[in-house]
Formats: sequence, structure tokens, C-alpha cells
Amino acid sequence: MSSKKKYILVPDSFKGSLSSTQICQIMRERILCHDPESEVFSIPVADGGEGSVDCFLQAVPGEKIYVQVTGPFLNEKINTYYALIDSGKTAVIETASCAGLPLVEGRQNPCETTTFGLGELILDAVNRGAKTIILGLGGSATNDGGCGMAAAIGVAFYNTQGQTFVPTGGTLSHIERIENTKRTSLLQGISVICMCDIDNPMHGETGAATIFAPQKGAGKETVALLDHGLKHLDKRIQRDLNLHVADIPGAGAAGALGAGAIAFLHGSLKMGIDVVLDTVGFDKLLKEATMVFTGEGKIDSQSLRGKVVIGVARRAQKQGVPVITVVGSIDDNIESAYDLGVSAIFSINRKAEDFSISRVKSEKNLYHTMDNLLRFYKSFQV
Amino acid sequence: MSSKKKYILVPDSFKGSLSSTQICQIMRERILCHDPESEVFSIPVADGGEGSVDCFLQAVPGEKIYVQVTGPFLNEKINTYYALIDSGKTAVIETASCAGLPLVEGRQNPCETTTFGLGELILDAVNRGAKTIILGLGGSATNDGGCGMAAAIGVAFYNTQGQTFVPTGGTLSHIERIENTKRTSLLQGISVICMCDIDNPMHGETGAATIFAPQKGAGKETVALLDHGLKHLDKRIQRDLNLHVADIPGAGAAGALGAGAIAFLHGSLKMGIDVVLDTVGFDKLLKEATMVFTGEGKIDSQSLRGKVVIGVARRAQKQGVPVITVVGSIDDNIESAYDLGVSAIFSINRKAEDFSISRVKSEKNLYHTMDNLLRFYKSFQV
Repeated sequence: MSSKKKYILVPDSFKGSLSSTQICQIMRERILCHDPESEVFSIPVADGGEGSVDCFLQAVPGEKIYVQVTGPFLNEKINTYYALIDSGKTAVIETASCAGLPLVEGRQNPCETTTFGLGELILDAVNRGAKTIILGLGGSATNDGGCGMAAAIGVAFYNTQGQTFVPTGGTLSHIERIENTKRTSLLQGISVICMCDIDNPMHGETGAATIFAPQKGAGKETVALLDHGLKHLDKRIQRDLNLHVADIPGAGAAGALGAGAIAFLHGSLKMGIDVVLDTVGFDKLLKEATMVFTGEGKIDSQSLRGKVVIGVARRAQKQGVPVITVVGSIDDNIESAYDLGVSAIFSINRKAEDFSISRVKSEKNLYHTMDNLLRFYKSFQV
Repeated sequence: MSSKKKYILVPDSFKGSLSSTQICQIMRERILCHDPESEVFSIPVADGGEGSVDCFLQAVPGEKIYVQVTGPFLNEKINTYYALIDSGKTAVIETASCAGLPLVEGRQNPCETTTFGLGELILDAVNRGAKTIILGLGGSATNDGGCGMAAAIGVAFYNTQGQTFVPTGGTLSHIERIENTKRTSLLQGISVICMCDIDNPMHGETGAATIFAPQKGAGKETVALLDHGLKHLDKRIQRDLNLHVADIPGAGAAGALGAGAIAFLHGSLKMGIDVVLDTVGFDKLLKEATMVFTGEGKIDSQSLRGKVVIGVARRAQKQGVPVITVVGSIDDNIESAYDLGVSAIFSINRKAEDFSISRVKSEKNLYHTMDNLLRFYKSFQV
């Protein structure tokens, strides 16, 4: 190709077949094969769940910090990690890394699991100089409303006997009083941004316990107990901290850690894709970019509501950069994507095959689809 | 788009789902939607079978001539048609239009069916001034080695009693002598080009009867009888016309009409795509063309052996025109297509779905695939 091109890759994962990191690798390899002189920027999209720290570290320079903190149960320590980026000024921490479902496999118990380790990770990062904490909420095994995390940073929870304790999902209703003033002064001026792509409230019919606790091992009665506990926590937060957080969209994320992050860390909840794009300086990267490749497992009317592809497209459109979307499946009624900045959408399916057959071919199919898109593009370059 | 573009559409049919005419219509509509100022040339590819006449008439100016000739059985007349193009200098005639399988539905009989009507169509065209006859061989219900056609243009077949007769598949072995000299003088200087994409010989293990007669209604014994008849005809052609036609690739096409066209019309057999491209002046059309869209139901290693896509690509490559191939299915091991002039290949599958499900969506899927290819292309035009 004639002039030096600049490609930006910002794919979501293809759920059930390819991680966003794998997708970036395949895309990058094909681009450099057809256009060896080009610059390629890979931004594998993290959703805040497991793998988010690694995604950030692939997109921007930084270091991975290995530490020992409390695991999903209060009486055990685990070795885990987080990332420091932006010359150490920003930390990226996954809830999943210390309180995630894979860590409790075979012993799931949303009544007893805790986010205490998350508070320890935050403290560690702040002690190392981080001024901004990016908190991934996805994949938690907890339902403690962030009380464990809060306890770790000094927030005091008193029971009816006037003793402090670390509330977990099953003991939230024992909270008689919350004293936020005891929170460590280290967190003064620290900005906390939570990656959160759901808008469930803290409790009730669409709340954390009702919707998410079943996949964390709760039966019907436990769900009711957990939901009751969250309602009680909400009342104490209202009374003792004078905050109304329960109905903020996303308060119900990660066993109501969303609510806790707002109440105890004064954090804000943002769409994951916006956190990623802001953190990597996407708008600046877009300057003089030739094109952006994005994608996801399935593009449908859901995807058009501010998820990855559209989040990317909106920004690229403002700067007139074409956005090529490569997906596993294209649903009907996605035409409005074009108005939102998507230039074109291609599926990776090369044959008429059921997903049960094509699933294992995702890597090869993506490879060939990228290959042909680049061949197509190249055929029009002078 | 900035400057006036010139698009050429040359798709084969997607067998089992879309005709080449339908494909051209969908492609054209999408192109003109995105690029209303452009010129679009539609060349739906005819394979020589049913519909070939209409394909030619969509690609070039001409007229459809309606006539009454002998049908697939000697004792019946049918109303049928052929085309005059190139200011009347060229006729396009389908064997299927007067001796095709759909005409004998429920009464298939390769022993008795005849190509007599085809000879009458040729005579009609020549009488109207045609100097070149393009003969589509596909879809015949016959196995008469073209003897019916030959009889209609004056070739005399004598039986052992010295009487002339019109041989059919079952009576080929009754031919005692052939007199070609009685052929009408009208055919002097007339050029006959047969569209033929198969390379089977006249008779034997891979001959017309063995391979194709079963789908024309012949059981095992009938196949043997027909094959025997073709061998006999071959001997008479050798002895009386001093021609060896049996092993010419394609001699076995259309119940050995391929052999008969060579022997009785001095015709030549050509790949259908080359006949189409020559007839429409494709090489000239390519000048200053922006891109060519071609396609077929399935691209595989077979397709690379000179069929439509590659036939188109070879010529376009010589003039540096990009060839975008849109297909129903992409097989493995088709990488050499790129060396043969194909710029890029895209399948129309938008979801991971079995053909039993996606088949009925071909029209919609092609529409959206073209739509996105044009959006992609457009996003890079200044």
C-alpha cells in the first residue's frame, strides 16, 4: 500500500469462542501480512471481569503487581494481581481476581463470600501511589454489597452488641450502624471508576440477589435472605451515610458491590467500553487513523444500546474514521448501527453451518474474513 | 462517491437458491442505492441450460423469437423461443427449450426423445440471417447423439432397408449409412459454438449414456442399449464422415449432442463462461471498470478449474480490475483463487446456520452482504 496506514483494533470477545486478545492477535497478524509497513494498535476490550487486567496491559504500558490478599472467604489468603498503568498513577483491579466465581468452584456460597480482598488491593495500589482506581465488577462470587471491601479500607460496621464485624451476604441484616468516618485517609482525593455494563438496582425484583445470586449458588430461600440483607444495608446507608444509592443503575452489579463502591468509595459507574477507551486515549489515537476494526460475538438490537461496537463507532464517527465490524453473527434489525457510526458489518461464517459445527472454526473463520477484507481494501489502493 | 464508477456484475447462479438473474438484480439495486450515479452492467451467467436465452437478453440488446417446432417427441409440436442478438447476426438457442427434461416430465424416455426441434430452431435462425449460432447444451432429455437435429437440417440417415429415418436414442444402431452431403446449404459458413462445461466422451464408462441417461429415465439395461447405440453412431460417423469425435472432451454432453454438433454442424465446444464473456464483449467492458462482482453457490477447488469465477477473474486481472466474489459457501483450499485474479471472497452467511435454515434467506443474505461491501468500499472513497 502506498502511504503508511494506522489501524486500531478494539474488539469485544466472541463469547464462547474467542477472547478479545485472540481476536486482536489474528487481526493484527493479517493486517501486518498485507500491510507490513503499517502501525497497528491493539485494544482488546475488557468487560471488567476476569482477564480485564491483562487486556489493559496489552493496550497500554504498565506493570502487573502480584500481592497476597484475602480471598473469597475471610479466613483464607490468595496470591493475586492487579495492574498499574499510566506511570503508576492508575490501577486496574478486577473483583474477579480476589472474589471471583472460579475461586469458589465447588463451594459457592453467596452468604459467606466477601469482597474484603478487593479493599486490600485498593489499599495496596493507593499505597504505591495510584490516584485513580479502575474497578472491574464482573464475575464476582459475592453478595455483600461491597461491605467486605469497605471494612478493609476502615469503614466500621457495628452489630447490635456494638461490636465491629465484617458483614457478608448472610449477615448484612446484622448491621446496626455504619461509621464511614473511620475510613482510611489514604483514599482522600482518590478517584474510583467502576466498569459496569448492567443497570440493575441494588435490591428488589431486578436487584442483585434476585437476578444474579442463583448463578452464585443461591436457592430460592437464600435469594430472599440475601435480598432482605441488601434492603437492610440500603436503609443503614441511607440513615448513617445519608446516601441513596439503591436505585442508581448498576448498583446491583457484582452482588451490589456497585452500590457499595458508590457509598463507601464515592466511586462512579461507567460503561466498560468508555472506561477502556478513555484509559487508552482512544480519541487521540483516532487522529489520522486509517480504520478501526471492532467486533463482538453477535450484533443485535441489544448491541446497539451503547455496548462495545457502538461505543467505539460513536467516537470514530466524530473523527470520520471508518469502523469495520467483524462478528460471529449478525441479527436482523441492526440497520441503525450505520447511523451510529458503523461503516460496515461482516460475519465470519464462511459456510452455511450450525454454530455447533462452526464454533471450533472461529479462529480460522476470523482469519479468512480479515484476510479478505484486507484484500478487498488493498485492491482499491493505488 | 466522487467520480462516476462502472460496475460489472457477472455471477453464476447459486444452485438451489438464487438464479444469476436474481443475483444481478439484488447486486444492481444495492450498488445504485449507494452510488446512484454509477453505471452497472449486468451479465447473469448462462450455463447453456434452461434460462440461458433470457440471460443473454439481459446482458445485451436483442429480440426473443417465438416459433413452433418439434418437441422432445417426433410426433408433437411445441411453442418455444430463442434469441437473436448482435443486430440479428447471432442466435442463442437452448437445447432445453425444445428437448429439455421439464418438457418430458412424467414420460421420460431417452430411447425415443429427439433433438429434431433444435435443428428446426437453427434453420429458423439462419433463415432470419444469423451467422453465428450459440448452442446451449444443458438440460436435455435426449440421448440421440444429435441425430434428430442433424435430420432436421437435411443430414440423411439410412437404415438397412435403404430408407431414411430420424434416429433416436433407441434406434441409433439401425443407422446403416449417413449422408452429410444432403445437409442444407443454408448452413454453409455458419459458425456454431456450443456452451459445454463438461468433458465426458461420447460413449463408454464416462460417456453420455452411462453418466447422464439414468437421470433421463434410463434403467441399467436401457443405459447399455443407449451406450451401444452411441458406439454404433460413432463408427458410422468415422466411416461415412471420416471424423473422430467420440473422445473430444464434451462429446458426451446432452446425450452426445456434443458429438453430433461437431460432426454434423462442424461446431466447436467452449466453456460456457467464455462464450458468455466473448459474446457480451467483456474484455472491452472491463476498460475503466471500477470493479467486477462475480459469485457462485460454492467456491471450492472444483471452481478453480476454469469455471465462472476464475473465467471472469483471469480476464479482469489482465486489466487490473478488482474482482469481488460473493458466494453461498467458501470451501477450504481455495487460496490459489487469489493468484488467478480474485481480489477477495465473501460468503453471504450472516449467522452460524445450517443450509436447511439459511437457504430460504439467500436473497436477504446476499442483499445485506452486498450492502456492507458497498458501505465498506464507500467509507474509503473521498
